[in-house]
Amino acid sequence: MAIRIGLVGTGTVGGGCIDIINKHRDAFVRHYGIDVELAAVCSLSDAEAKAHGVGHLFTDDFHNIINDPAIDIVIELIGGTTIAKTVVLEALRAGKNVVTANKALMATSGQEVMDTAEAAGKTVLFGASVGGGIPIIGPLKHSLIANQIESVTGIVNGTTNYMLTRMADNGMSYDEALAEAQAQGFAEANPSADVDGFDAAAKIAILASIAFNSRVAMDDVYTRGITNITTTDLDAAREMGYAVKLLAIAHRTDSGIDVRVHPTMIPQSHQLATVNGVFNAIYVVGDFVGETMFFGEGAGAGAAASAVMGDVLELARLIQQGVGPVVGCTCTDELPIRTIDTLSMKYYIRFTVADRPGVLATMSQIFADNNVSIHSMTQRGKSDRSNVDIVYVTHTALESDVQAAIEAICAVPDLCEVEPSLIRVEE
Amino acid sequence: MAIRIGLVGTGTVGGGCIDIINKHRDAFVRHYGIDVELAAVCSLSDAEAKAHGVGHLFTDDFHNIINDPAIDIVIELIGGTTIAKTVVLEALRAGKNVVTANKALMATSGQEVMDTAEAAGKTVLFGASVGGGIPIIGPLKHSLIANQIESVTGIVNGTTNYMLTRMADNGMSYDEALAEAQAQGFAEANPSADVDGFDAAAKIAILASIAFNSRVAMDDVYTRGITNITTTDLDAAREMGYAVKLLAIAHRTDSGIDVRVHPTMIPQSHQLATVNGVFNAIYVVGDFVGETMFFGEGAGAGAAASAVMGDVLELARLIQQGVGPVVGCTCTDELPIRTIDTLSMKYYIRFTVADRPGVLATMSQIFADNNVSIHSMTQRGKSDRSNVDIVYVTHTALESDVQAAIEAICAVPDLCEVEPSLIRVEE
Repeated sequence: MAIRIGLVGTGTVGGGCIDIINKHRDAFVRHYGIDVELAAVCSLSDAEAKAHGVGHLFTDDFHNIINDPAIDIVIELIGGTTIAKTVVLEALRAGKNVVTANKALMATSGQEVMDTAEAAGKTVLFGASVGGGIPIIGPLKHSLIANQIESVTGIVNGTTNYMLTRMADNGMSYDEALAEAQAQGFAEANPSADVDGFDAAAKIAILASIAFNSRVAMDDVYTRGITNITTTDLDAAREMGYAVKLLAIAHRTDSGIDVRVHPTMIPQSHQLATVNGVFNAIYVVGDFVGETMFFGEGAGAGAAASAVMGDVLELARLIQQGVGPVVGCTCTDELPIRTIDTLSMKYYIRFTVADRPGVLATMSQIFADNNVSIHSMTQRGKSDRSNVDIVYVTHTALESDVQAAIEAICAVPDLCEVEPSLIRVEE
Repeated sequence: MAIRIGLVGTGTVGGGCIDIINKHRDAFVRHYGIDVELAAVCSLSDAEAKAHGVGHLFTDDFHNIINDPAIDIVIELIGGTTIAKTVVLEALRAGKNVVTANKALMATSGQEVMDTAEAAGKTVLFGASVGGGIPIIGPLKHSLIANQIESVTGIVNGTTNYMLTRMADNGMSYDEALAEAQAQGFAEANPSADVDGFDAAAKIAILASIAFNSRVAMDDVYTRGITNITTTDLDAAREMGYAVKLLAIAHRTDSGIDVRVHPTMIPQSHQLATVNGVFNAIYVVGDFVGETMFFGEGAGAGAAASAVMGDVLELARLIQQGVGPVVGCTCTDELPIRTIDTLSMKYYIRFTVADRPGVLATMSQIFADNNVSIHSMTQRGKSDRSNVDIVYVTHTALESDVQAAIEAICAVPDLCEVEPSLIRVEE
């Protein structure tokens, strides 16, 4: 008997899901004995449903899906944390299994969603919420569970990776790269979620929760975006043998979980350094498996729909076998989250200063006063008529000391004409 | 109640499995509610069992494991296709679920193993048979099944990848690289399985069978190794913008499956080109997900044990839930296998010829007579006092034509002093 699917949200990813069912339904039956039938499609208008040939399944009220006893699985592809949350929670309470691609929901209300699923005896899968079509949540929940995961490091936002690639490889300014990303449809008109790092923060919260078996919410993630990065920084990084990436980082340490998103210099020889353009990659280190990396398209209708429908087929298989939730919440530990103040690493800091005598002495003294030892100082081409860029690279230093030094420097007239660019260095 | 494990084979991977259970058993219970207990260990001697602290579980007769009604899962880590096959088949017939890392067995007798499992209503998992610890079989059987897989391309043999990396980056000869690999423990005293491509052939047979839902056995794989590759070839490739890798390739085409292992030139910009040393990577293209790649350690005790124990925990989870085989054989289609003669691609061919007038004219005529159009011809440094290396790069040509041309050239005295080096080019 067919497993009946209700789809809520018919944007690009929803359209991709409809296309997959239309194209491969017969193959799923033949290969896996799984028959998935699209039973209803909900959206604000029926335009997309009609465009994908399923206008006859359209409804504009998601309750018609949630309350339909014949529907087994609800796919939520609205996004956001308001109506989408209602759809997911009500669907679970109504006895549906749920598949969602909603990273914001899972990263902010993951606990509530998982608790609701457990109370209902149903399963919620969210493989498409991180990394688009890249299988990463599946392997973390299955193939890799024999390991204690030590770290997860990802390029998980394609928009910013595209922009940084264009700036590094083609000398584009930040504004030019953003405008091109918007023109290509990779960036929104309001790009904040991408360029300020929030999208990546939601994703690393989800990955860290699974990898470390401990709840990490989006608010726990120290988050900085790429808005202060210039081609000067990318050129300097290249000369030093590094690439600059917006990394989402989660480390297990003896004193808790270190989880953060910020521009990061990584050696050019690292596997993540060659992940360019809109591609995503997630680098996972486990105590037995060692280093692994998962690479692919982090966005786009087809990739995300592949992940959504992978989850749908997995659920359908379990429903056909009469099996309840196979893997529910695995956040059984409560590991402390370390604040970034307590971390020590190396830093690249670029100041734009007024070009007058004595600035270097003043800045160097402030670093010394704050226990920040300097590895190198380089003056880079004048950024305009009167200002110059001064690039400091520190030895390993405490984050709170570095922040105090920057604050003190920026309190001095002329030393901080624009907001400094801070890039942390991971070896 | 604990799920009881019987381990047959206590080499490096078996030792890794014991270590994982010793180290993480409590965590598996806490995180996943899965309790796995090592109940018996079989090997020729008890030295390894004792070394890993489980001497009290030792037996030298695998029948004691297969016939023990209290054992739920048998891990087969003997390798090879003789005793290992007996262990796997008898364990399944005795009602055990089986986990094996045995690529040779699965690639030559996969059908018989899967049929036996199905008849017994049991599951056999073999995630460690390809790519060491890299989760690749899991994603192909789960996360990616919404796709029609178009191709699987892998660097799946760490030994040869290590050798090629040392030859390309450090100018080592083939013999030097092999000697170093043997000294480091990456290559066997008899390296044939690695350097002749058989290990990679077994792995791509397994991957192709799963990816295309159609049985591909090791004998179906056209297989050539790296024994004719010299630093001359690697230097020439680099100058042309390529890297040389021993690739295991499986393409779905309109007229069947194209599956083969051979040295291959790939553009330096391709993700696979930067996979160096003993690392493995598998590049998968699906019709919706697009390009994905899975990277990691392809061998070693920890990595392989991670994959074996991932399978064990997956089975234990199903046994605890009282669920039968979730994914059995998925080879439901019978796609024809294309012979390599029918394929067309570009070729790099290096001949070592006696250095006398007229050889180029003769060789060029033979290529023309066989419908092979030449893109470039380069003479490279004398390989010894009297011979020179002549490198041809063809336009797209039919494999059978290229082979006929090589055979005709080698039939002429002086034109083929050593076996030519043939490297196929994938763009």
